[in-house]
Amino acid sequence: MAIANRKAECLEMEARGQQQLERLQSSLNRANRSVPFYRNRFQEQGFDPAQVESLADLERIPFMERYHLGDNYPYGLFAVPLRDIVRIHSAPGSGLKPTVSGYTKQDLISWRELVSRSLVASGVTATDVLQIVLDPGLANWGRDYKDGAETLEASVIPLTVLPPEKQLMILCDYKTSVLITSSMAALELSQLLFEANLNPNVLALKTLILVGESVDTSIRKQLTDQLHVRTWIHYGLSEVPGPALAFECEYLQGLHISEDHFLPEIVDTSSGQVVPEGEVGELILTTLTTRAFPLIRFRTGDRARFLTDPCLCGRTLRRLEWLPQRTDGMVVVRGVKLDYRHVVLLLERKLGFLPDQKRLLVVRRELEDFLEIWLCVDDQLFSDEIKVMERLIGDLREELTQELKVPVLIRLKEKGSFVSPT
Amino acid sequence: MAIANRKAECLEMEARGQQQLERLQSSLNRANRSVPFYRNRFQEQGFDPAQVESLADLERIPFMERYHLGDNYPYGLFAVPLRDIVRIHSAPGSGLKPTVSGYTKQDLISWRELVSRSLVASGVTATDVLQIVLDPGLANWGRDYKDGAETLEASVIPLTVLPPEKQLMILCDYKTSVLITSSMAALELSQLLFEANLNPNVLALKTLILVGESVDTSIRKQLTDQLHVRTWIHYGLSEVPGPALAFECEYLQGLHISEDHFLPEIVDTSSGQVVPEGEVGELILTTLTTRAFPLIRFRTGDRARFLTDPCLCGRTLRRLEWLPQRTDGMVVVRGVKLDYRHVVLLLERKLGFLPDQKRLLVVRRELEDFLEIWLCVDDQLFSDEIKVMERLIGDLREELTQELKVPVLIRLKEKGSFVSPT
Repeated sequence: MAIANRKAECLEMEARGQQQLERLQSSLNRANRSVPFYRNRFQEQGFDPAQVESLADLERIPFMERYHLGDNYPYGLFAVPLRDIVRIHSAPGSGLKPTVSGYTKQDLISWRELVSRSLVASGVTATDVLQIVLDPGLANWGRDYKDGAETLEASVIPLTVLPPEKQLMILCDYKTSVLITSSMAALELSQLLFEANLNPNVLALKTLILVGESVDTSIRKQLTDQLHVRTWIHYGLSEVPGPALAFECEYLQGLHISEDHFLPEIVDTSSGQVVPEGEVGELILTTLTTRAFPLIRFRTGDRARFLTDPCLCGRTLRRLEWLPQRTDGMVVVRGVKLDYRHVVLLLERKLGFLPDQKRLLVVRRELEDFLEIWLCVDDQLFSDEIKVMERLIGDLREELTQELKVPVLIRLKEKGSFVSPT
Repeated sequence: MAIANRKAECLEMEARGQQQLERLQSSLNRANRSVPFYRNRFQEQGFDPAQVESLADLERIPFMERYHLGDNYPYGLFAVPLRDIVRIHSAPGSGLKPTVSGYTKQDLISWRELVSRSLVASGVTATDVLQIVLDPGLANWGRDYKDGAETLEASVIPLTVLPPEKQLMILCDYKTSVLITSSMAALELSQLLFEANLNPNVLALKTLILVGESVDTSIRKQLTDQLHVRTWIHYGLSEVPGPALAFECEYLQGLHISEDHFLPEIVDTSSGQVVPEGEVGELILTTLTTRAFPLIRFRTGDRARFLTDPCLCGRTLRRLEWLPQRTDGMVVVRGVKLDYRHVVLLLERKLGFLPDQKRLLVVRRELEDFLEIWLCVDDQLFSDEIKVMERLIGDLREELTQELKVPVLIRLKEKGSFVSPT
């Protein structure tokens, strides 16, 4: 199968190390010079970017947490003046302020290349018709995939907000050969296909690219069998900078990380120490080339481990196994990552107070995944009038669905009926 | 004020005529060769594209109606093989099938130029922060404006589905200087701004670009005064090919048509004859450069007249006055054009039968425009159980809102309470 950028993806190991070190030095210098947030942290730590001599020096820098992105809202983490920024993305953060990321013209060019590289690894070519079906919470990824696929000169049906029945109609009538979606949305389409008594062989679909969450082997097998397709998993960050940071090749043995642009580390979540190669921990990412929005040791919250043996595909990009369950308690609904703290803050703002007991669950109802929020009915939430209660719940549900851009359900529980208030 | 492409926009009149004739000949030949729909129509009419010697020869070709687009669903009107298509757009048509349009790589490049040209005419530069706020029904235009603005190296906040309060927050916090939206969405944001007791002077907003419908002078004045901005109107087709077919320059005396890419005619709606220069009629458009999806004499349904005197800006592109009310009874809700026949077909499909009496209205409720559908309560629609009725209406409302991508209200009227069943 083709490799989009053989020089970059198959670089010899020693050269890779040298490339990463040079780019790291340059990134750290730039962050130190242009972003007060990083400068202050480096100074507090007594860390001098000019003294960096090996990739291991990175370990002396404290982690960047998701809430730092909100703290520096809107443009505090940009490393270039606003006039050099050509794209501004927003994503939900951990607080009430969104996460804002920026791209220079060159950043967008790099990003297009990264996405198209991962598409080539999934076998996409100029003759494909590629359909993007993602929840509105992944709109930024939709744009990136459109750009990447257009670079390959595939025919792109861009992301549009449409009911699943309409997406299925497009899948059939437009002769889609590549579908990019979340595993949950793919299962939903597959189910609709069977309900409509359509044989998957009438579809032109050959390739299914799954994004947004790590996919269970059984679900993957189910999709492969039901839709008669090959499936590929791509990895990205919900917040920043986008999709296709890592991707599977045709050997499907873990995800190749785009190490020319990102430096990955796996650390022990509690100690923060780098774990021995091959052990499971939290994935930490540092950007090596981004000009507008450098991230230094960003905690992804994703659990992963490195796979160390060389890959038969010829790429020297290290692979990782992406494991289900997160290290930070975030929940994933239809590929969209939701921060527990963010949901709680929204609840507080909408209700005007913070319910004592609450719990978040991901549930499936009628083919669709929902974020289900359980609230304890106590004096504050209680109303004698069933109509008033219904309206409150209805409004809350609608507002949270709009804010979080995933479908939300609210369930009221009597006091004492659930024990752990997490 | 700057002119993006002086050579194209200020071409001397005789050279313009020659350019248009050559491009028209080439377009007609290509359509005749590659699209059976056009070939058949030309043959029926005894029209030979090879014999075209002047722009007036175009008048011998019958009009293309909106329903022709649906009839040729999905790819019947493409003039190039699918492998040369890099973008596929869908828009609601007049029937149940969407309108599908395609773009080659070169088409997208032309389109970016057209959009950026119209942005330059509105004073947009590389130092601007540009926010796109459009309803999901205008998602394709959102993409085009993003591309065009990125070409100018402005900082673009792309279209995202967000509640108006969030859009206002972005408008304030991100220091937006250019806002692209519909006049109704602009009024809504302006109202929210005042409700939040914010002085428009705290905003960085300087430029408001209004799209989707012709704008009443009083509404324009209201927006200009309330937001302390200059306003500009851009014209486009909802279905195909996109926004910025025509645009205002700084003299605000009508909209300059991008005549190097589109040939406009104004005809009498009933006779179909071209009206004398300067008289009001329906705007007919023929594409001159599009490779993937040529339109020959497409009836826009928009009412307009040519303004004939030269413009002080120096552009030789002819100007048109874009008049409110359409020739085809379509309604415009928040910039999104809706075909009466399409709505009626959807109603029939959802209800399983066609209500005898129905009427569509555009209404404002709580700052937002809705499509209000009045249905006559007769034996078929009547239910003794109020709960059953409520659920039916709720479902219908939700489904139509999803399908039409504008907010819908359903109102039931007693038989005899409205007379005209249109």
